[in-house]
Amino acid sequence: MVSDVIRVSSADNVAIVIKPDGLFEGEIFFGSLKAAEPIPFGQKVALQNISINDPVVRYNTVIGYANQSVSKGTWLKNDYIKTPPSPEFFRIDFSKSTDEEVEKLDGYTFEGYRNSDGTVGTKNVLGITMSVQCVSGVIEHVVSRIKKDLLPKYPNVDDVVGLNHHYGCGVAIDVPAAVIPKRTIRNLAQHPNLGNEVLVLGLGCEKLRPELLIDGDNYSLVYLQDPRFEGFQAMVDGIISKATVHLERLNRRRRVTCPASDLVVGMQCGGSDIFSGLSGNPVAGFAADLIVRAGGTVFFSEVTEVMDAATQLVERCANETVAKKLLEEFQWYQNYLEAGGGDRSDNPTPGNKRGGIANVVEKAMGSIAKSGTQPIVDVISPGDKVQMKGLNFVATPASDFVCGTLQLAAGMNMHVFITGRGTPYGLSMVPVVKVSSNSELGKRWFDLIDLDAGQLLTGQKTIEELGWELFQLILEAASGRKLVAADKLGLRNDLVLFNPGPIT
Amino acid sequence: MVSDVIRVSSADNVAIVIKPDGLFEGEIFFGSLKAAEPIPFGQKVALQNISINDPVVRYNTVIGYANQSVSKGTWLKNDYIKTPPSPEFFRIDFSKSTDEEVEKLDGYTFEGYRNSDGTVGTKNVLGITMSVQCVSGVIEHVVSRIKKDLLPKYPNVDDVVGLNHHYGCGVAIDVPAAVIPKRTIRNLAQHPNLGNEVLVLGLGCEKLRPELLIDGDNYSLVYLQDPRFEGFQAMVDGIISKATVHLERLNRRRRVTCPASDLVVGMQCGGSDIFSGLSGNPVAGFAADLIVRAGGTVFFSEVTEVMDAATQLVERCANETVAKKLLEEFQWYQNYLEAGGGDRSDNPTPGNKRGGIANVVEKAMGSIAKSGTQPIVDVISPGDKVQMKGLNFVATPASDFVCGTLQLAAGMNMHVFITGRGTPYGLSMVPVVKVSSNSELGKRWFDLIDLDAGQLLTGQKTIEELGWELFQLILEAASGRKLVAADKLGLRNDLVLFNPGPIT
Repeated sequence: MVSDVIRVSSADNVAIVIKPDGLFEGEIFFGSLKAAEPIPFGQKVALQNISINDPVVRYNTVIGYANQSVSKGTWLKNDYIKTPPSPEFFRIDFSKSTDEEVEKLDGYTFEGYRNSDGTVGTKNVLGITMSVQCVSGVIEHVVSRIKKDLLPKYPNVDDVVGLNHHYGCGVAIDVPAAVIPKRTIRNLAQHPNLGNEVLVLGLGCEKLRPELLIDGDNYSLVYLQDPRFEGFQAMVDGIISKATVHLERLNRRRRVTCPASDLVVGMQCGGSDIFSGLSGNPVAGFAADLIVRAGGTVFFSEVTEVMDAATQLVERCANETVAKKLLEEFQWYQNYLEAGGGDRSDNPTPGNKRGGIANVVEKAMGSIAKSGTQPIVDVISPGDKVQMKGLNFVATPASDFVCGTLQLAAGMNMHVFITGRGTPYGLSMVPVVKVSSNSELGKRWFDLIDLDAGQLLTGQKTIEELGWELFQLILEAASGRKLVAADKLGLRNDLVLFNPGPIT
Repeated sequence: MVSDVIRVSSADNVAIVIKPDGLFEGEIFFGSLKAAEPIPFGQKVALQNISINDPVVRYNTVIGYANQSVSKGTWLKNDYIKTPPSPEFFRIDFSKSTDEEVEKLDGYTFEGYRNSDGTVGTKNVLGITMSVQCVSGVIEHVVSRIKKDLLPKYPNVDDVVGLNHHYGCGVAIDVPAAVIPKRTIRNLAQHPNLGNEVLVLGLGCEKLRPELLIDGDNYSLVYLQDPRFEGFQAMVDGIISKATVHLERLNRRRRVTCPASDLVVGMQCGGSDIFSGLSGNPVAGFAADLIVRAGGTVFFSEVTEVMDAATQLVERCANETVAKKLLEEFQWYQNYLEAGGGDRSDNPTPGNKRGGIANVVEKAMGSIAKSGTQPIVDVISPGDKVQMKGLNFVATPASDFVCGTLQLAAGMNMHVFITGRGTPYGLSMVPVVKVSSNSELGKRWFDLIDLDAGQLLTGQKTIEELGWELFQLILEAASGRKLVAADKLGLRNDLVLFNPGPIT
């Protein structure tokens, strides 16, 4: 049965028409309601009588207040919804909406690589990091040679990855904002999939000293300017010989059964369409709740997309300290945008409105939907590492490649990427499960999409079914039993640092 | 005879020790002076008694003031030199130092690819540009497939290059500073080596519309979200089929004899040592003068490295308009640095300091040496294209990869990169002639360095001999007759945009 409308949460008093031709007058929908008038595709229909000044609830969230009374079954036009005032971050008080205990989820496991620091890898990867962009050409050469000549000898090692970036010199390395790229590089090198077996390439005269980037003992450091390297081949041989030591050790890593609580899943969307907030993101949100109930960790991000729902997010913070940290990150980002002459831009766009989005709060709620419903236990500054299990907000830009890089630095071992229009996203360091928000894309990009959440819109599957499917898919991919589309095709994004400081 | 110290100008009161073991206590040097203490290689020795607050003079320029008295023959440590105050750009008046006519240089030619717009290519390259970072994984895949399957069929095409970047979406595309990355991307696609045969990959929902990036007729535009692409392989096949059309046309390009006036040579240094300003840069400067005398174009850049020599540069501007433009670019950059909490003290690097460079003024004078002595006929804003033949200042950051990318966007068809400590620099789009400033590096990196300017320090060759050698090497490499070290090894930098605006 094809669905006619979608209600995201049982607490919602509006639903969205998804029948391609819209509802006709008198049509029975949502089981037993009757459309009082024609209501076009993508628009809101009232599921209950809503009186003037009553809250309009979607995503279990007040997205605005009715400026006129609307009867059950009629079209709740966007004009009928008073937009709540823009949140002034410093005025938002912490008030927790609910404190209900969620049912724990036991018995779910995956096969991962347990590290000595307690983190768990989902791939077994030799990482080659760098202290300065100048060495990136050499890293590229070395990575390609290791792939060709060495990897076949180490069957338990999945890949070799150059953690390329454009930092390290020719940048204002001591300005306040420089902490972000510096800690990002450091934390990327400590990613659980690299097993603390990291090779660091430096040049020898860079500003960013490689020693600042590494902790622990299991790393090698090679400077290209090392006077012992007589020419390029000697340099490459020197690097390869260090790499071999790490490959030997990595090759002895074995997957062991780990509880789902060792998952650290980063949620992100990109190339969104109007269905992203209806199908893909809510399905991801359902899976996010399952992961958190299983004791695991979920990240959501994209400050510029969610900061207009600051009030709603503050209500979901576990305590006042977290709420303050969240608002401080929003305020920092707002200042950063304003300093560059930018602002929150004209959100929502005319296209969004035609697509049924009433205001910035509703748009933000569509983005937040992928975080599920659990409390936000911590806020992670860009480039920092996760400290607490549960749902974390990682304060990153919305820019896809930057968000992914910062979620990696925070310790994500699985990534979920939801797309509606289609983005051929992929990461080298962790498996990326790509979810389409509509079946047209899911079918057309059959070899690029891992799960089609558009099946929710066509009524083929429920949100619960798809959410569980995504959760199982995450466990399978984390165990190396299921190869995600991006890994089958070898599609990889560049890592892209967030550097709000000037270059020099 | 091997020199013991080098004094650049007869007005200087310090010299640099270039005797490999340094001066020993009591050693007679510079004819008749006596070393009062051991002074290491690369460090400064006082040629006169210098009292506290006296100017320290090098390159016939005050590079700072002594913060203690130093006797003739002693080691003038960098700590003893107070950095002079930053020049106040708005106070510098235009005053032209000289207007002497230079002797024209006729009869020098190279074999290049002449384009319909009058520019000349030095390589024959298929360029694949992009409107948004999201497509970069696909470009990487396609480039590798074209290299493997198609290039062998088109023997006159040298290479295929993906013009990868991290712009196009998730960026504040309408802020004032956004003009820089946008025009850079557009002008890179118009690079003379691409022969106006450019393939543009877009996603389909990006902010930066591909149509804004291309001019003329000879381009193809492919959107990955094109509904005709059923899956990844269809997408790749679609791109390859468009690429084939361009390869066919590029394969018919032929080199023709071009005057040296068609050269557009970008000068840059990176990983500098104290000899960069003594050997490598002055040799590059000599070649720069030859190119300008032959009617060609030379770029020098690196605002942060040269702006402390603003007074000296203004004197070299061809007219007051150029001088004003130069100072406006410097002021813009200073504001940009200050807005991010940075200042000019981010330069020199720790490596520079160990190499004996005291401060940014001394570094600036050494950096400027590579521009030769001819008048600055124009100043090119970052991302803009060259308009005038002769010596141009291209206002770029000093960051090596960014400077190279912006010089490419400005239309550079040959690159000279001078290094002292050693940087394995290389570009895909144009040949890079790498010059070492000392013979130790020149010998050790025998397969990475194309010309050893350190031969000047050992007395083996004069600056004139080496300058002519570099000029001839540029003509040979521009003609495709001489393969530079970076091309032999396949060493390539990433292109890196200068984006002073915020990301979102």
